[in-house]
Amino acid sequence: MNSPAGRPRVIVVGAGFGGLAAARALAHVPVQLTVVDRRNHHLFQPLLYQVATAALSPGDIAYPIRSILRHQANARVLLAEVVAIDVARREVRLADGSLPYDFLVVAGGAGHAYFGHDAWEKDAPGLKTLEDAIHIRRRILLAFEQAERETDPAVRRDLLTFVIVGGGPTGVELAGAIAEISRHVIVSDFRSIDPREARIVLVEAGPRLLPAMLPATSETAAATLVRLGVEVRVGTPVTDVDARGVSIGGERLAARTVVWAAGVAASPLARSLGVPLDRAGRVPVEPDLSVAGHPEVFVIGDLSVYTHQTGRPLPGLSPVALQQGRAVAGNIRATLAGRPRHRFHYVDKGTMAVIGRSEAVAEIAGLRFSGLVAWLLWCFVHIFFLIGFRNRIIVMMEWAWAYFTYQRGARLITGDVETP
Amino acid sequence: MNSPAGRPRVIVVGAGFGGLAAARALAHVPVQLTVVDRRNHHLFQPLLYQVATAALSPGDIAYPIRSILRHQANARVLLAEVVAIDVARREVRLADGSLPYDFLVVAGGAGHAYFGHDAWEKDAPGLKTLEDAIHIRRRILLAFEQAERETDPAVRRDLLTFVIVGGGPTGVELAGAIAEISRHVIVSDFRSIDPREARIVLVEAGPRLLPAMLPATSETAAATLVRLGVEVRVGTPVTDVDARGVSIGGERLAARTVVWAAGVAASPLARSLGVPLDRAGRVPVEPDLSVAGHPEVFVIGDLSVYTHQTGRPLPGLSPVALQQGRAVAGNIRATLAGRPRHRFHYVDKGTMAVIGRSEAVAEIAGLRFSGLVAWLLWCFVHIFFLIGFRNRIIVMMEWAWAYFTYQRGARLITGDVETP
Repeated sequence: MNSPAGRPRVIVVGAGFGGLAAARALAHVPVQLTVVDRRNHHLFQPLLYQVATAALSPGDIAYPIRSILRHQANARVLLAEVVAIDVARREVRLADGSLPYDFLVVAGGAGHAYFGHDAWEKDAPGLKTLEDAIHIRRRILLAFEQAERETDPAVRRDLLTFVIVGGGPTGVELAGAIAEISRHVIVSDFRSIDPREARIVLVEAGPRLLPAMLPATSETAAATLVRLGVEVRVGTPVTDVDARGVSIGGERLAARTVVWAAGVAASPLARSLGVPLDRAGRVPVEPDLSVAGHPEVFVIGDLSVYTHQTGRPLPGLSPVALQQGRAVAGNIRATLAGRPRHRFHYVDKGTMAVIGRSEAVAEIAGLRFSGLVAWLLWCFVHIFFLIGFRNRIIVMMEWAWAYFTYQRGARLITGDVETP
Repeated sequence: MNSPAGRPRVIVVGAGFGGLAAARALAHVPVQLTVVDRRNHHLFQPLLYQVATAALSPGDIAYPIRSILRHQANARVLLAEVVAIDVARREVRLADGSLPYDFLVVAGGAGHAYFGHDAWEKDAPGLKTLEDAIHIRRRILLAFEQAERETDPAVRRDLLTFVIVGGGPTGVELAGAIAEISRHVIVSDFRSIDPREARIVLVEAGPRLLPAMLPATSETAAATLVRLGVEVRVGTPVTDVDARGVSIGGERLAARTVVWAAGVAASPLARSLGVPLDRAGRVPVEPDLSVAGHPEVFVIGDLSVYTHQTGRPLPGLSPVALQQGRAVAGNIRATLAGRPRHRFHYVDKGTMAVIGRSEAVAEIAGLRFSGLVAWLLWCFVHIFFLIGFRNRIIVMMEWAWAYFTYQRGARLITGDVETP
């Protein structure tokens, strides 16, 4: 068992926060580790909305998986699409081949859920990948360009209406950033339109924004958004979406740009595990994060649902995925050493959401913060956890630049100029 | 004539170096200026190969045209596609409408010429736009990824063979950068392949590299490339290109990645001007840069061919376009003031090409430079002419980072993982 070839094979599917944490925590464990992802980069998802709103470039929040694991001798990285998992034969099926495993860590993440209305996706794209972010950036910037050329005032008004569906952190961050762009960044750029006339509507089906935070925090966030020029509509489920706008209850919101930041649908990979899934398609896991009946298969992050701590599922946040990745590595090591596994326990170090320049909300160790203090905390934490010294420096510079000049460095429209 | 509405209408088609220089030089002239481009950004084309080779992000070398002209009160910017020019009716035809003009500056630029073999473009993409650069970056990075997974040694060798067609500055810069990536940047990233085994072939039909520079400079460039690990093949026209490689004379070079950096084909816009074009589709212009028979229409930059200075066409370089843009603005101003126009005279301030880290060649005022001195000159000049203080700082940082760490910050593969 000492030659690399004889070592147990561990496959990690997905190099997000969870998968990468598991891989790195296995660095000094005598296993043959394979990390499979269909992207060549690890994505720092909490800052994805900043790419969608032209504050950062795609390269600033993504880092090659190979470079992260470069010096980890027991790890190899495969750029490949996992199509299914055969738990009976202990094999991961790729689009072109298969990989046998002794331990499997499935960290495939989640996409957006359209609650049975998949046709809405075309007109209300979600924000999960770099491609999504580039696409949304393009739509937002093109809406202003088209409004500048439009002579019909009604069409112009629809072009300058932006609807964000979903009042979680992503929705709040997007709405605040679009308000900032229209009120500050591009004010002097146009001749026929005044970008400040743009209408930004944040629509949430539930009773308040940021439902994972305290009610008082939700109120602060809503009040700040309103002050920045965002219309906040809570308790308003979306009943229809098409290319011309959204319907909320009996009301119609005409808008050419709609972004979807609501609902979570786990990766379809979950289905091939052959266990019952929850309503969002997530895999219920055991206290040690393994799948019932398959102690050699672990599921972590947004793809899993863990209820053994509070009775309710843990939220789909990067710190949860990260801690689960480390816990799984510990349990694999324990099993190899003949020791019992540990029960996973999530340590909540706080949550935060940014709303605009010098505006954020945060809850840390039972304390609530808002305004500049919360914003600086948010900046600090997000810079700190970015992978790669270079990315930290570049992002810090971009933020400083944006702060002092009200400019955004990545206002690029790539692709054709036709209406998206 | 003092109200803006009564002022002469000047349309500039294309916001490259030439068009933008013309627009900015008209800042204090009482005209109604419209700049039309089908991109929202001005592109710093001399650094495009650095995006293609993952050293810079797209946003680092592009800047919104609106922001550049933000404070120029007489200018408006239209994001639109120009489909034709009607010189008889003095109208620019857009995909959706038309714009009348009193003066027209056509600066539509050029694409790559495949010398009657347009089918080659699919397998040997050219490098003119940001989209091209992102596509080529993707192909180069994917070739290494696929080689890592390939078990057939012959296919693996083809995947690790890169052919650059064209020995001008772009071809030289691309070949040098790919050599550097394979020899230094990603050496420790793979487990199954040794990226240093990559074969990089630079193919030039003419007798020497960098034909616009002195023969001694060409020799220095070729020797430097060979030292960096590039095979240089001059006097070798390409006779065929397909998905599996290129044919040069009787010889076959099997390669999965081919990049086209040869030949120039002017924008098809030139044809609608109704004057005889040269072989590359460029518009021969008068000494004042206007089109014969149409003193109100000027053509500048890569779309024009100017032979009145040396008898031979001026090269397709950014300084030529830039100086022509300023000259045209001067001639429009002269005409409006009832003064005679000036004959255009290009002032050659030097040419340079970078080959690799600390390696470049330059010719300035009859002096030849190479190695570190030329490289520092190149860095200095390119930083200096980048539009926007932020871009200068970011690019300087990226280069310093790349210099000291041998890393490249933008090694992103976006899009699907399938073979391109």
